Amino acid sequence: MWDMAEELKAMLVFAEHRYYGESLPFGANSFKDSTHLNFLTSEQALADFAKLIKHLKRTVPGAKNQPVIALGGSYGGMLAAWFRMKYPHMVVGALASSAPIWQFEDLVPCGVFMEIVTADFRKSGPNCSESIRRSWDAIRRLTSTGPGLHWLSEALHLCSPLTNSQDVEHLKDWITETWVNLAMVDYPYESNFLQPLPAWPIKVVCQYLKNPNVSDPQLLQNIFQALNVYYNYSGQVKCLNMSETATRSLGSLGWSYQACTEMVMPFCTNGIDDMFEPHSWNLKEFSDDCFKQWGVRPRPSWITTMYGGKNISSHTNIIFSNGDLDPWSGGGVTENVTDTLVAITIPEGAHHLDLRANNAFDPTSVLLARSLEVRYMKQWIKNFYASLRKKR
Amino acid sequence: MWDMAEELKAMLVFAEHRYYGESLPFGANSFKDSTHLNFLTSEQALADFAKLIKHLKRTVPGAKNQPVIALGGSYGGMLAAWFRMKYPHMVVGALASSAPIWQFEDLVPCGVFMEIVTADFRKSGPNCSESIRRSWDAIRRLTSTGPGLHWLSEALHLCSPLTNSQDVEHLKDWITETWVNLAMVDYPYESNFLQPLPAWPIKVVCQYLKNPNVSDPQLLQNIFQALNVYYNYSGQVKCLNMSETATRSLGSLGWSYQACTEMVMPFCTNGIDDMFEPHSWNLKEFSDDCFKQWGVRPRPSWITTMYGGKNISSHTNIIFSNGDLDPWSGGGVTENVTDTLVAITIPEGAHHLDLRANNAFDPTSVLLARSLEVRYMKQWIKNFYASLRKKR
Repeated sequence: MWDMAEELKAMLVFAEHRYYGESLPFGANSFKDSTHLNFLTSEQALADFAKLIKHLKRTVPGAKNQPVIALGGSYGGMLAAWFRMKYPHMVVGALASSAPIWQFEDLVPCGVFMEIVTADFRKSGPNCSESIRRSWDAIRRLTSTGPGLHWLSEALHLCSPLTNSQDVEHLKDWITETWVNLAMVDYPYESNFLQPLPAWPIKVVCQYLKNPNVSDPQLLQNIFQALNVYYNYSGQVKCLNMSETATRSLGSLGWSYQACTEMVMPFCTNGIDDMFEPHSWNLKEFSDDCFKQWGVRPRPSWITTMYGGKNISSHTNIIFSNGDLDPWSGGGVTENVTDTLVAITIPEGAHHLDLRANNAFDPTSVLLARSLEVRYMKQWIKNFYASLRKKR
Repeated sequence: MWDMAEELKAMLVFAEHRYYGESLPFGANSFKDSTHLNFLTSEQALADFAKLIKHLKRTVPGAKNQPVIALGGSYGGMLAAWFRMKYPHMVVGALASSAPIWQFEDLVPCGVFMEIVTADFRKSGPNCSESIRRSWDAIRRLTSTGPGLHWLSEALHLCSPLTNSQDVEHLKDWITETWVNLAMVDYPYESNFLQPLPAWPIKVVCQYLKNPNVSDPQLLQNIFQALNVYYNYSGQVKCLNMSETATRSLGSLGWSYQACTEMVMPFCTNGIDDMFEPHSWNLKEFSDDCFKQWGVRPRPSWITTMYGGKNISSHTNIIFSNGDLDPWSGGGVTENVTDTLVAITIPEGAHHLDLRANNAFDPTSVLLARSLEVRYMKQWIKNFYASLRKKR
């Protein structure tokens, strides 16, 4: 964005989403109960952006008659796309990077996300995904005894030892989330988005996972080496802390509530097309968990009702960019919908790589994507001024 | 609509707006306080329509893949237009009849509404608007004494006699509202929209208001005859009841709250371009009244922020129809915005005449309007099926 802004001589505005960061409408009470959380919806967030743009146009010298473009990645990319759909009078277009606007209801198969994660590991080293696939049973066998629980806690250098089967479930969830996060941040250069990581981190991880035909303890020691790449690239970490997930800093509490109301994204695994333990999507269980945690139940059909699901062809001027390595691309728009609702795919791209700053190790595909994005933006701006002239 | 539905072989659905009629979300408590009224917004009403359409498509045999068209008159026409703008995936187009979507902020001059009311009376009989213009001073002079108050109460056959200057202000407001309502329902045939009325009721009213150069008592007796056309066309009414306004049955309570939150429509008069006493638009006073009545203050810029004000050209497939006699046409879209955002004007039309059933006394202009509307609808439906075929 910074590079694009310079080229387009644009002002950059980074709007913080309500209930995230410092934008807490009720201060410390913002997450107290569902009454205080009632105002945490995507519609309200879009309305904030509308009011913000009006405010900026009124108050920033020279901004009044300038065209505005919405940009965002991930959920921010969904918001950018939805903002252009709902407020087309406010922005001339939107760049929605890695925006899984179709990861709802049955718009895409629920397994596609984890299949892409698996493919990333499969492609990043021989037997890599197979080693991970076998690790779940190894964990189950190892943790079936007290000494095994103890041994595994030591082998994985866990800060808190595993004590019961619930801990083991948590361990598997935590490891799963690690592989998912690695797929999202599999960037071609050293980076620090969720964690400080080496270039192509899955390749590094997979160097430890070349042999699936080893003993259970050996396999889990290899898994530890792999996890260590993600959690201890700095070499400073003394033990691995399962209660610290890498996405906490991104506001997982707010997202958990949103997932329990509007943002109901069905995920599933079958252990065949992916390297994970089979889990079907269970809306009832999900809803019960939401009710326990937040006192609310999700509305799984609302997002498609509100934002149109796959019927978006009447909108214009939205770029949907996706990296093929990114598991979120499975719920994204990866083919042109119309001439002005266009898809850009980046074969070597992970999660919103195109929105990151230029880097010497950028693959050609992301450079092409960025230059295409700027070209579309220039066209939107040109059309904006042309229609202004017509009005006069 | 009934005639059009037959021609298009359509199902008609009349959705009741929340907080109106029987659609009370909190039953008898729905209007209790602003907490219970929080859910009365146009956005929530549009969301209701979206959910309703989804529900109907799921449950009505054969409805699933049928195109839907939104129709509405007045506020319902605004909702129809806004629904197409916000949910273009749900309706192939909208007919917004007499929809004053620009009667907000400074999009149109605040005096235009009352100027059209005045023009209707001016055109409907010699000296008619001039008689009304002079009536306000006559009322002021007559009611400056106790006996004058008494006389006027008798002369106007008021159910409750006027006792103080506050009553006199109320009387003038009530008479003003009567002239406004007559302008809205100035239909070419006997009708019963707000009240049972003769054909071209303003012409009938104006027969009593031919001479402005009479004594104050004579002028007010003439005004009584004129009011009597509106309030007593049946001949059954014993006295005129100022506390019964003709629009109560349309849900004036709900609208009053909406006007105090989103639907802030600036109105004003100057007594020169219109036949009323001069009143400037005073947002502060309006806001204070809202706070007294509902405990809320209006957001006068919200509707234009949300729905785009005059910047609506990126939307498609909306017909804006307006009658030139209708005061609400002043805030309506009366010129084409684009090829697919089209305006239809009906020179002899009052408030949403085009949506009324066919009548032998319909002027040609409304027949043309209706046939043009059906032609547009057929085109939208044709395009809908064409795009379906393209998808397959």
